[in-house]
Amino acid sequence: MRTKPSTDPLIIGGQEFDSRLLVGTGKYPSDEMIPDIAAASGSRIITVALRRVDFEAATDNVMQHIPDHMQLLPNTSGARTAEEAVRIARLARATGCGNWVKIEVIPDNRHLLPEGNETVRATRILVEEGFVVLPYINADPIVARQLEDAGAAAVMPLGAPIGTNRGLTTREMLQIIIDEIKVPVVVDAGIGKPSQACEAMEMGADACLVNTAIASAADPVGMAGAFAAAIRAGRDAWRAGPGAIRSAAAASSPLTGFLYEQTDPS
Amino acid sequence: MRTKPSTDPLIIGGQEFDSRLLVGTGKYPSDEMIPDIAAASGSRIITVALRRVDFEAATDNVMQHIPDHMQLLPNTSGARTAEEAVRIARLARATGCGNWVKIEVIPDNRHLLPEGNETVRATRILVEEGFVVLPYINADPIVARQLEDAGAAAVMPLGAPIGTNRGLTTREMLQIIIDEIKVPVVVDAGIGKPSQACEAMEMGADACLVNTAIASAADPVGMAGAFAAAIRAGRDAWRAGPGAIRSAAAASSPLTGFLYEQTDPS
Amino acid sequence: MRTKPSTDPLIIGGQEFDSRLLVGTGKYPSDEMIPDIAAASGSRIITVALRRVDFEAATDNVMQHIPDHMQLLPNTSGARTAEEAVRIARLARATGCGNWVKIEVIPDNRHLLPEGNETVRATRILVEEGFVVLPYINADPIVARQLEDAGAAAVMPLGAPIGTNRGLTTREMLQIIIDEIKVPVVVDAGIGKPSQACEAMEMGADACLVNTAIASAADPVGMAGAFAAAIRAGRDAWRAGPGAIRSAAAASSPLTGFLYEQTDPS
Amino acid sequence: MRTKPSTDPLIIGGQEFDSRLLVGTGKYPSDEMIPDIAAASGSRIITVALRRVDFEAATDNVMQHIPDHMQLLPNTSGARTAEEAVRIARLARATGCGNWVKIEVIPDNRHLLPEGNETVRATRILVEEGFVVLPYINADPIVARQLEDAGAAAVMPLGAPIGTNRGLTTREMLQIIIDEIKVPVVVDAGIGKPSQACEAMEMGADACLVNTAIASAADPVGMAGAFAAAIRAGRDAWRAGPGAIRSAAAASSPLTGFLYEQTDPS
Repeated sequence: MRTKPSTDPLIIGGQEFDSRLLVGTGKYPSDEMIPDIAAASGSRIITVALRRVDFEAATDNVMQHIPDHMQLLPNTSGARTAEEAVRIARLARATGCGNWVKIEVIPDNRHLLPEGNETVRATRILVEEGFVVLPYINADPIVARQLEDAGAAAVMPLGAPIGTNRGLTTREMLQIIIDEIKVPVVVDAGIGKPSQACEAMEMGADACLVNTAIASAADPVGMAGAFAAAIRAGRDAWRAGPGAIRSAAAASSPLTGFLYEQTDPS
Repeated sequence: MRTKPSTDPLIIGGQEFDSRLLVGTGKYPSDEMIPDIAAASGSRIITVALRRVDFEAATDNVMQHIPDHMQLLPNTSGARTAEEAVRIARLARATGCGNWVKIEVIPDNRHLLPEGNETVRATRILVEEGFVVLPYINADPIVARQLEDAGAAAVMPLGAPIGTNRGLTTREMLQIIIDEIKVPVVVDAGIGKPSQACEAMEMGADACLVNTAIASAADPVGMAGAFAAAIRAGRDAWRAGPGAIRSAAAASSPLTGFLYEQTDPS
Repeated sequence: MRTKPSTDPLIIGGQEFDSRLLVGTGKYPSDEMIPDIAAASGSRIITVALRRVDFEAATDNVMQHIPDHMQLLPNTSGARTAEEAVRIARLARATGCGNWVKIEVIPDNRHLLPEGNETVRATRILVEEGFVVLPYINADPIVARQLEDAGAAAVMPLGAPIGTNRGLTTREMLQIIIDEIKVPVVVDAGIGKPSQACEAMEMGADACLVNTAIASAADPVGMAGAFAAAIRAGRDAWRAGPGAIRSAAAASSPLTGFLYEQTDPS
Repeated sequence: MRTKPSTDPLIIGGQEFDSRLLVGTGKYPSDEMIPDIAAASGSRIITVALRRVDFEAATDNVMQHIPDHMQLLPNTSGARTAEEAVRIARLARATGCGNWVKIEVIPDNRHLLPEGNETVRATRILVEEGFVVLPYINADPIVARQLEDAGAAAVMPLGAPIGTNRGLTTREMLQIIIDEIKVPVVVDAGIGKPSQACEAMEMGADACLVNTAIASAADPVGMAGAFAAAIRAGRDAWRAGPGAIRSAAAASSPLTGFLYEQTDPS
C-alpha cells in the first residue's frame, strides 16, 4: 500500500503536473473545440494519434489546436506489434512531437484490447532509447509489474473496452495494480461518467485519461469541467481517508430518550 | 423526465440555495469542528437532532456551533410514530428552531429504517400547520408520490441503511423517484464516498445529505470539501448530458492505415 | 438469523410443499403450455389473476389448464386500494378458487409498484376472514414486519419492478427482510435468470415466484426446468453453509518447493 | 456468437463428458472426502497438483482417493516460468498421470495471478509434444486468442483471484472471451457460490472449475451437489434462451377492467 504524499502534484517522467486529468483529441464535433476542452479540464497532458497529424498542412491540423503549455503525449494508435509501435514512436520524436509516448498495441479490431507482451517489448526498446513511456494495458497486474520493471514512467490500465463508457468493470484488478505498482497508475479507457473517475481516484489511482466520455457529451466543455472536479474530489477523498463500510446501520442522531424527558409545547 | 433548468440553484420551500450538499451535526469528533465542516462543504442547510439541543445550557450546546447563515433543518430523530414526530416538530418551532423539519419516523432499532405510512401522516399534519417538511423515507416511489401529494417540500429517500457507508444500494428505485417526483429529491443516508454522491447527482437527484461519511473520515474537513466538489461535478455532468453507454468498443484514435502510408524515420 | 431446518419442505399456511418455485399463468404463448410448465418446474403453487378466469365459459378458460394437484393462488391484480383487493379475494373464494390469496395493490400504472399501507390493511381484513394471505410488497422491511404482525402467511417482496427481468436490485433490503421476518419470504417479481433465483435462495429466501422470465424465454418449458434446478441448488448451498469471501488470494494447490526437489524426466 | 449445439456433452480434447463441473483436490478437511465429492458433484474431470502426489508412498497419497472413472488433470502449480511448467507436465506424463495438463504459471506469491506470455509459450511447447493443454489465465481475450491459436484444448480464465470466493469480477472480459473463442471456456478460480457458476453458464461458458468454494463449505459434499445442479441450471437456461431485460415494468397479470365488470360476492 502506497503511503500518502504530503504534497500532491502528479509526477510522471520527472515532471510535475497540477492536474490529474489527461484528455484526448479524438471524436470531438470539431478540433476547434480542443482549446476550450483543455481550459475547462485544467488538463496538462493531452494525447494525440500521430495518424491525425498532418505535418505538411499549414492549416486544418489537430496540432495547431493544442495549447502550448500542455505536455504532448503522442500515441501509437494503429500499431499491431511492438515493432510498429516503436516505428511510430520514433517518427513522432523525429517530427518534433517530443519524447513522450503512449504505447498502444492493439491487434484486435473488434474489442480494441491491448496486447500485453508486445507492449512490454516495445516499452523495453523505447525506454532504452530515452523515451518517457506510458503503456496502455488490460488491467493485468502481472503485465503492469513487467512494465514497471521495464522502466515505464506510468501504467495505463483500462476500466472497460475503449469507447464503451461502461466504467470500472475491471475494478478488482485495478485495485491490485494500484496497491502493488509504484509508478503512477493512470486509468484509461471505459470511464463514462465523472462518478467513475472519482471512484478510481478514491481507490488510489494517480490520474485518469478521459476522451470519449467528454467528446460524446451533449456539452463537451461542461463535461470536461465536471470530470476535472470529480477527479479532484476523488483525490481529496483518498487523502482524507474514508470511514469504514458497515453492514449494520448506525444512527447519526440519538434515537432514544428524547420524547420522554420533555413536554410537548403544542 | 424533468427538463433541465436554465439556472441552477437548489430551491426548497421557496428558498434558493447555492449548494446541493446538506450536512449533519452528529458523530463528529467534536462539535467544535462544525463551523469548519460548514465552511469546507459550502453547505447552506444543516440538520440537527432536537435531542442534542440543550436549551438551558449557555455553553456546550451544538446550536452555538452552527453558523448563522445556514438554514436549520431540525429532525425528529427518536420518533416512532406520526404523533411523536409532530410533537418534536412543534417543540422545535416553539423553541426557536424555525419552521423547517426533517421528519424521521423510525420504529426499528436495528436497521433504523423509516416507516412510510406514519411519515405520510406526519407530513400531512405538519404541512397543514405551515411547516416546510422534508420527510426521510425508504426508496419507495409510491410513498414518495404520496408525500408529494401531501405537500412535502422535498423527499429524502435513503441510498442504504443510515451509517453504513454502503452507497446507492437502492439505485433502481431512486431512479424511478427522480424520474417521477417533481419536488426536489435529496438522497439521504448510506452515501459513503464522494463518487456515490456524484453518481446520485448524475442520475438527476437534486441534492444529497451526507453526515456519517464526513464525520467518520480520518480528515472530516478534507472529506467535506471532497463531497462538495463531487456533488458539483455530478450536477454539472447531468447538465452536460452524458454520452451513451456502448456494448462494443469504439476507438477514440484512428486504427488503420497509418503505418502503411508513412516511412519509418528511425 | 433463522436457524436451519433439519427437514426441508416449504411450509405456508400449514401446508407442506416439496418445491420452492412458484409459477404464474400470465404471458405464455398459449395457456395450453401451462401443464408442461407445471410439470417441468415441479411447482406446487400457481398464481392466477382472477380477471383471467371466465367462470361461464366451458372451454378456453385458464383454469382448465391448471393441474389439480397444485395449490391455487388467486391474485388481486387490478386492485388499487385495500377495499378493491378485499372484494376480489372474496369473489375468488365465492367462486370456488379457495381461501388462498396473493394481495396485489398497485396504484401506479407505469412502474407497477405495490402500495404498502393498503396492502397491510387488506391483509388485516382478509386474515380476519380466514384467508391464507400472501402479500406482494416492495422490499421494505418495515412493511414486511407489519404484515407478519397482521397474520400474513408469507411475504412476497420484489427483486425489481415486475416484468423487467432485472434481478435482485433490492438485494440489501431483501437480506434484511430474510434475516428479520419469521414467516416464509417469497421473492416475487424482477427475477430474470435462474442464477438470480439461485442467489435469492443462497441469501436465505424460502422460495421464488417466477413468471415473466419463464414465459418470455424462447423455450419456456426448458427455462422452467432450469429455474427449478437453480432454486434447489441455491437452497442446498444455503444449507451447506458457504465459505467466507476473502479479499486476498489463497492457493488451492501448493505453490512452492516442488521444482527443486524432483528431477526433470524429460 | 457461438451457435447452440443440438446435443450437449462437454467435449475437450476429443473426449466427451456428461458433466460441466470440474473439481479439485486441494483444501478439503481430509483427502478421504474426495470420492464423496466426486460422486456428489457428478464431475468427470479432476485437477491435482503434482506436488501433492507422492509416488513412493503406498498409502496416504491423494491419488488413491481419485475415482478411476475420472479424467485426471494434473496442474503445474508451483511453476513460475514456461520452462518450469513444461518440466512439471513432462514429469506428470512420465509418472503415469496421462497427457492432460492444466498449465499454471504464477510468478506472484501474493495475488497468485497467472502470467499470460509464459503460459502461451508453455502451451505451444506442450501441444507440440502431444499434450491436451488447458491453460489457466487472467480474463484476457487477447491471451485467450493466442492460446486458441497455439492449440489449447480449452481456456480457463479466472473469475476472481483464486481462493477469494468473490465471483465473476471479470464478467465483462469473460463475456468477450466466451463470444470470441471457439474452444471450450472453463471459468476457473474465484467462483464462491453456485449462483455465480450458474451465471457463468448463462453467459455461455462451457464449464466451471470449483475447488475452494466446495472445500471451504461447512458441508462440502452438500455444496458439491449444489454446484452440480446450478451448473446444469445455467446451461439449460442458456439453451432455453432467456427473455430480454426491460427498463420498464410489464404486468404479468392484467391490471384493468376487472373490478368494474363483476359484482362483489361479499
